[in-house]
Amino acid sequence: MIYFNCDYNEGAHEKVMERLFATNMEQTEGYGTDPYCKKASELIREKCAAPTAAVHFLVGGTQTNATVIAAALRPHQGVLAAHTAHINVHETGAVEASGHKVLTLPAKGGKITAEQIDRFVQAHVSDDAFEHIVQPGMVYLSHPTELGTTYSLEELEEISKVCRKDGLFLFVDGARLGYALAASDNEVGMEDLARLCDVFYIGGTKVGALFGEAVVITNPLLQKDFRYIIKQRGGMLAKGRLLGVQFLALLEDDLYLEIAGHADGLAEMIREAFTRKGIPFLVESHTNQVFPILEDSMLERLAQKYSYSYQERVDAGHSAVRFCTSWATKRENVEQLCQDIERL
Amino acid sequence: MIYFNCDYNEGAHEKVMERLFATNMEQTEGYGTDPYCKKASELIREKCAAPTAAVHFLVGGTQTNATVIAAALRPHQGVLAAHTAHINVHETGAVEASGHKVLTLPAKGGKITAEQIDRFVQAHVSDDAFEHIVQPGMVYLSHPTELGTTYSLEELEEISKVCRKDGLFLFVDGARLGYALAASDNEVGMEDLARLCDVFYIGGTKVGALFGEAVVITNPLLQKDFRYIIKQRGGMLAKGRLLGVQFLALLEDDLYLEIAGHADGLAEMIREAFTRKGIPFLVESHTNQVFPILEDSMLERLAQKYSYSYQERVDAGHSAVRFCTSWATKRENVEQLCQDIERL
Amino acid sequence: MIYFNCDYNEGAHEKVMERLFATNMEQTEGYGTDPYCKKASELIREKCAAPTAAVHFLVGGTQTNATVIAAALRPHQGVLAAHTAHINVHETGAVEASGHKVLTLPAKGGKITAEQIDRFVQAHVSDDAFEHIVQPGMVYLSHPTELGTTYSLEELEEISKVCRKDGLFLFVDGARLGYALAASDNEVGMEDLARLCDVFYIGGTKVGALFGEAVVITNPLLQKDFRYIIKQRGGMLAKGRLLGVQFLALLEDDLYLEIAGHADGLAEMIREAFTRKGIPFLVESHTNQVFPILEDSMLERLAQKYSYSYQERVDAGHSAVRFCTSWATKRENVEQLCQDIERL
Amino acid sequence: MIYFNCDYNEGAHEKVMERLFATNMEQTEGYGTDPYCKKASELIREKCAAPTAAVHFLVGGTQTNATVIAAALRPHQGVLAAHTAHINVHETGAVEASGHKVLTLPAKGGKITAEQIDRFVQAHVSDDAFEHIVQPGMVYLSHPTELGTTYSLEELEEISKVCRKDGLFLFVDGARLGYALAASDNEVGMEDLARLCDVFYIGGTKVGALFGEAVVITNPLLQKDFRYIIKQRGGMLAKGRLLGVQFLALLEDDLYLEIAGHADGLAEMIREAFTRKGIPFLVESHTNQVFPILEDSMLERLAQKYSYSYQERVDAGHSAVRFCTSWATKRENVEQLCQDIERL
Repeated sequence: MIYFNCDYNEGAHEKVMERLFATNMEQTEGYGTDPYCKKASELIREKCAAPTAAVHFLVGGTQTNATVIAAALRPHQGVLAAHTAHINVHETGAVEASGHKVLTLPAKGGKITAEQIDRFVQAHVSDDAFEHIVQPGMVYLSHPTELGTTYSLEELEEISKVCRKDGLFLFVDGARLGYALAASDNEVGMEDLARLCDVFYIGGTKVGALFGEAVVITNPLLQKDFRYIIKQRGGMLAKGRLLGVQFLALLEDDLYLEIAGHADGLAEMIREAFTRKGIPFLVESHTNQVFPILEDSMLERLAQKYSYSYQERVDAGHSAVRFCTSWATKRENVEQLCQDIERL
Repeated sequence: MIYFNCDYNEGAHEKVMERLFATNMEQTEGYGTDPYCKKASELIREKCAAPTAAVHFLVGGTQTNATVIAAALRPHQGVLAAHTAHINVHETGAVEASGHKVLTLPAKGGKITAEQIDRFVQAHVSDDAFEHIVQPGMVYLSHPTELGTTYSLEELEEISKVCRKDGLFLFVDGARLGYALAASDNEVGMEDLARLCDVFYIGGTKVGALFGEAVVITNPLLQKDFRYIIKQRGGMLAKGRLLGVQFLALLEDDLYLEIAGHADGLAEMIREAFTRKGIPFLVESHTNQVFPILEDSMLERLAQKYSYSYQERVDAGHSAVRFCTSWATKRENVEQLCQDIERL
Repeated sequence: MIYFNCDYNEGAHEKVMERLFATNMEQTEGYGTDPYCKKASELIREKCAAPTAAVHFLVGGTQTNATVIAAALRPHQGVLAAHTAHINVHETGAVEASGHKVLTLPAKGGKITAEQIDRFVQAHVSDDAFEHIVQPGMVYLSHPTELGTTYSLEELEEISKVCRKDGLFLFVDGARLGYALAASDNEVGMEDLARLCDVFYIGGTKVGALFGEAVVITNPLLQKDFRYIIKQRGGMLAKGRLLGVQFLALLEDDLYLEIAGHADGLAEMIREAFTRKGIPFLVESHTNQVFPILEDSMLERLAQKYSYSYQERVDAGHSAVRFCTSWATKRENVEQLCQDIERL
Repeated sequence: MIYFNCDYNEGAHEKVMERLFATNMEQTEGYGTDPYCKKASELIREKCAAPTAAVHFLVGGTQTNATVIAAALRPHQGVLAAHTAHINVHETGAVEASGHKVLTLPAKGGKITAEQIDRFVQAHVSDDAFEHIVQPGMVYLSHPTELGTTYSLEELEEISKVCRKDGLFLFVDGARLGYALAASDNEVGMEDLARLCDVFYIGGTKVGALFGEAVVITNPLLQKDFRYIIKQRGGMLAKGRLLGVQFLALLEDDLYLEIAGHADGLAEMIREAFTRKGIPFLVESHTNQVFPILEDSMLERLAQKYSYSYQERVDAGHSAVRFCTSWATKRENVEQLCQDIERL
C-alpha cells in the first residue's frame, strides 16, 4: 500500500533527525527556555521581519488553535471561521471546550472573504438583541485551507483591514504553511503574515518535523502571559528544546521551503495526470493536496494500491477524494500513481 | 404604545401575585426544600403521569437550558438542535460556555425531524475520523419552537424512538409550553412529553409567572446529583419557595392552560385579520406568536402604535415580523390592532 | 419552630411587595432595560457618589460572584479569597466551573489582610516556575464576611492600595451589605466601597427583597460588555424590572438601612443574652449573625424550639453555631430566645 | 554547570533514539492507530497483567492529568489530592480550567492516607448543605510523590478500598513511576497499580523517552470514548507512532527499570554523602530526588558548580533544595558532587 492519505505518515526529514541526534545528550533548561528555542525564535523573527514578535513552540495543531483562541477571547466572544474550518469540524470541539463558539461563515473552496466578515459584524452590532448573541472577537483562517487553496495577498490585505476596523483579532492557522509558501502561485510571504495578522503559526508537523508548530504573535495584547496559557492547556513540552532544534533544522538554509516545494511539485504531477484524463477537481489549488472527483469504480481500482482520503460524495456515481503529497513522498510512487491514473 | 413584541412585558397573573402575597411572611427552608416546592412537584408528577420523575424549579430559560445540557453531556459531546434554536442563536453561547458544541440541523419552521437526527448520527459513527468530531449526545427541541410551530404526536414519537435507538438524550424546551398545550391543533400532552423525553420543562416566565421554569426529569441517569449542578450554575434560588408557590398557583385548577388559551385565541384573531388582508405568513402556527410578512410601508404605519419584534427580511420590500400575545394581553388591544390591520 | 438559621426564610419586606403589586400589569421592555432599572441604577450611583459606575441587577449571590469573576479574569488567572469565603466553600465550585482557581489565604474571623495579599503576589512573581502557577488576578472579600465580621475603613484602604499596586481587581461581595452598613461600629459607606473597589454588590436577597443583587462596577475595564456575560451565565432576568422595582423600594427613603438596623439590633440582644451567661463567641461581630460556642446539651435544649445553623465543632463538648436575624425577625421571638438563653 | 535541577535536561536514551531513527521513514497511520502503538499497548497490558485495560499514549504529564480528570468527572465533582500535588501547584490551574476544583488534603511527605480520604467523604455526605459543596469524585495520587516518597503496598490497598467503598475513582500519576519501581524499598508493581487503580500512567518523559506518558485505564467506565477527549484536549499526536516506538524501546528488555535503577542508585550516593556530613533531609525517600536541608552558605557554594532546584525555606538560615538524578546522569558528575559535599 502506498500512502497518499495524509501528510504525516512518516517521521521527520533526515536533517531534523540528525540535529535531534546530535544534541540529544546536551543538558539544557526545560520548557522552551533553552538556547535552541531562543535561536529558532530569533531566526523566525528575522524571516518575518518582525523584531518585536513573540515566538512560542507548541506540539500540535489542535493544541495550538485551542490555546491561541482561548488566550485571545473573553468569555462572551466567538471566533469566525469557514464552515469547513479545521476548528469547526475536526478538533472534537476543542474551541467550545474552552468556552467559545465557532461562528461559521459559508466558505467557497475553504476560503472566507473580508466582505463576509464585515457583514457578520455589522449584523451583530445592529441587532436589537446583540447582547444575547455571541460577539465575534477573532477571525480564524487557514492558509492553505483544508481544501489546499490559498489566499491572495489582496484577499489577506482586505481581511486584515476589516479585522482592524471591526476590532477583531486575525489568526492564521499555518499547519501546512510551507506548502503555501512554496506554491507556484504564492503571493504571501511570512513577513506579509506577520504584518497582516495578530498571530499565525508555521506548521512543522506536516512539513518535515516530527511534530511542532511555531506560533508568531505580533500583537502585544496577545503576547501578554501567553506561556501561562500554553502550560495550562498542556502544551508546554518539558524538553522544549526538541521544538527549537527541529525548527532550526527546518528554517536554516530554507530547508522548509525546499521540501515543501518538493511536495507541491509532486502534487502538480498528480493534478496533471488527472487533468489529462479529463477528470475534474473539487477545487483549484496548487499546494500539496489534490481533490479529484472520480467515478466510484475508479476509486475502487485505485484503492487496491493507494491509500487516499475520502472527502465527500458529489453525485450518485462520483465522489471527491484527496491525494496528499508531503516532504517525504517519493517521486517513484507518484510516477506509478500517474501511470495508474493514465490507465483508468 | 401597545406591546406585542414579546410575552414577558408584564409581571404575573393576579392569582400568582395573590399567592405570593399570602405566603410572604411564612418562614420556610430555602433552596427549594420547602413544602410549596414539594407540593408543586407532586402536582406536576401527577399531571405528567410520571410518579418517579424528579422536578426542579429554576428561574429562567437560558439558565435552565445550560444547566440541563451541562448536567447531561460528557465533555466530548454536543447537542443537536435546529439552526434557529434559542440555544444556538439567543443565549450568548451559554452552551458553549459550559464546553459543549451546538450541532445544528437545518430547520423548517423551527422544527427538525427524526430522520435528520438519525442521518446525523449515522454519518458520525461511520466517519473514519469520528473521534475528531464532536459526538452527538442529546437532542434539543423546543415545543412550541422559536417560530411558534409545534410537533405532532407522531413526530415526537419518531424523534423519541430515534433518540433511544441512537443513545441520545431527548430534551424539550417548554419555555412556552402552555401555548402549545392550549393550541387548537394540539396533540401532545404533558404525559406524552414525560413518556417520550428524558427531560423537559414547563415554562412559567412567559405563561403567567413572574419567573420560573419547572424541569421534569424522567430519566434516572439525569436525575442523579442534579441539584449540585443547579447550584453550581447559579440557578438555585435562595427563597426557592417563590417558585413552588407560583407553579402551584398556575397548575391548580388548570390556570396555566386557561391563560395560555386566552393568548392563543387572541393570536388567532390577529392571524385572521392578516389573512383577510391576503397577507402571508412566514410559517403556519397556532400558538401565541404570529409571523406575518409585510410591506415595509405597512410596518412603518403599524410601528407608530404597536411594538412588534423584527424577524427577518424576506425580499427587497418585505419583512417578516412577530406579533406576540400572552396571558396578559388585553382583548381590546387586539381588537384595535385588527382594525388597524384591516385599514392597512 | 422559630427560625434563626438563616436570613432568607421569609419573602420580601411589605413595601417591596406593594411596589411589585402596584407595577405588576405595566408593560415594560425586558432584560433590565426598563425605566425602573434605570431609575434604581441612577439612585445607586448617587448613593455611591459614583456617577460613571455601571449598575447591573442579578438574581442571586452565587450567580453574581461567578459572573463577576468570569468577566474579570483571563484563563490563567485565579481569585484570592479567605479559605472560609463563600466562593470557596459554598458555591459547588461555580468559580472553578468557569475555569478559575480560588487561591485561598488563611483567614482570621473570615478576614484577610493587605499584607497577606501582597506576600502572595510577591511569592508568585518571584517564583522560578511562575508560569506553571495560577496567576492571582482578583481579590474577593465579603463585607460582612461569612462570620459576620466587617472590615475597618483602614483595612479596606490598605487592601485597595495593595490591589492597585499589584495589578489585581478588588471585588467585594455585599450579599449582606446592609447589615454591615447598619452595624454599630460601621466605618465603611457605599461611597467608600465605590471608591476603593473595582466592583462590589449591594445584596437584596438577604436584606428585604424577594431576590436580587445590585452590582456596581466602577472600573471601566470591567464595565465593557458585562451584559453579554450576565446573559451567557443565565443571570439576565426576562422581567428585569422586578429587580429595579425592588431596589427602588429598598433604597428610596433608606428602607434598606432601616431594616438592616432592625436585624443588627436584635442580633445585639441575642449577643448580650449569651454574654450575660458567660458564653463565649467564635468571633466578635456586630452584624446580624451571632456565633456562640455552646455545650452540646445546651444546643439540644435550644434545638427543641429554635432552628439555628451548625458552624463547627470547637472541642469534645462544645460547638459553635449561628443564630441569624434578618429584616423580618420579630422582636417577640428574639425576646423569647433571650429568656431561654437566660434559663440555660 | 552540572545540572541536578530536574530529570528532563537531556533528550532520550540512545536505544529510544535508535528506534526512532530506524523507523523514521516508515509509513503508518496517524493518531496512535499504528502497529507500534498497538504492540506497545499489548506489552503494557501484559506487564500489568491487565488483559482488558485500555492503553493510550499522551505527550506530557500536565496534559495527561487534565485529560484523565476531565474525562472522569461530572461538572459538580472535584478531585482529592495532596496540597503539594502537581495538579494543585504546578499546572497553572489546568484542572480548574476544565471546570473542576482540586480538593486538597494536608499531606505529609507528599502523601495522603485512606483515612483522610474517607473522613473527607463522610464530612461531605453528612453536611446539611452538601449540594452547595463540590462533590469528591476522584482521588489523585502521585507515585512517587512530588517529594520522591512512595506508597507502600498496604497504603495503596487501603486507599483503593476506601475509594471503592466511597464511589471515587482512583488515579495514580506515574510521571516518575520508573524511579518508584526501581527503588530499593519498592513494594508496588505495575500489576498492583492496575489492580488497585482505575487509571494510572507510566511516565516516559522523565524516564528515558523524549516525551510520552502511557495511560492505563482498567475501569471500563473510564475507557469509553477516551480518545475523543484526548483529541479535544490537544493531546492526540499526529505521528502517534513516535509514542509507541519509544515505549516499545523502553519496556522491551526492561530498559525502563534498568535506567531508573541507575538514577535511584546515584541518588542514594548523594543521599549518603549528605548523611555522612550530618545534613538532614526534608523527607525520607529512595527514588531519584534528594531533598537535603542546607545552610545558605553551603547552598551558595554548591550553586557555583551545580544546578539544583529550590524547594522551601526551613528556617532563617536553612533551606531545603532538590538534587535530581535521572536515567542520563553521569556517575562521574555524581562522584564530583559527593566530593564537594564532603568538603562543605
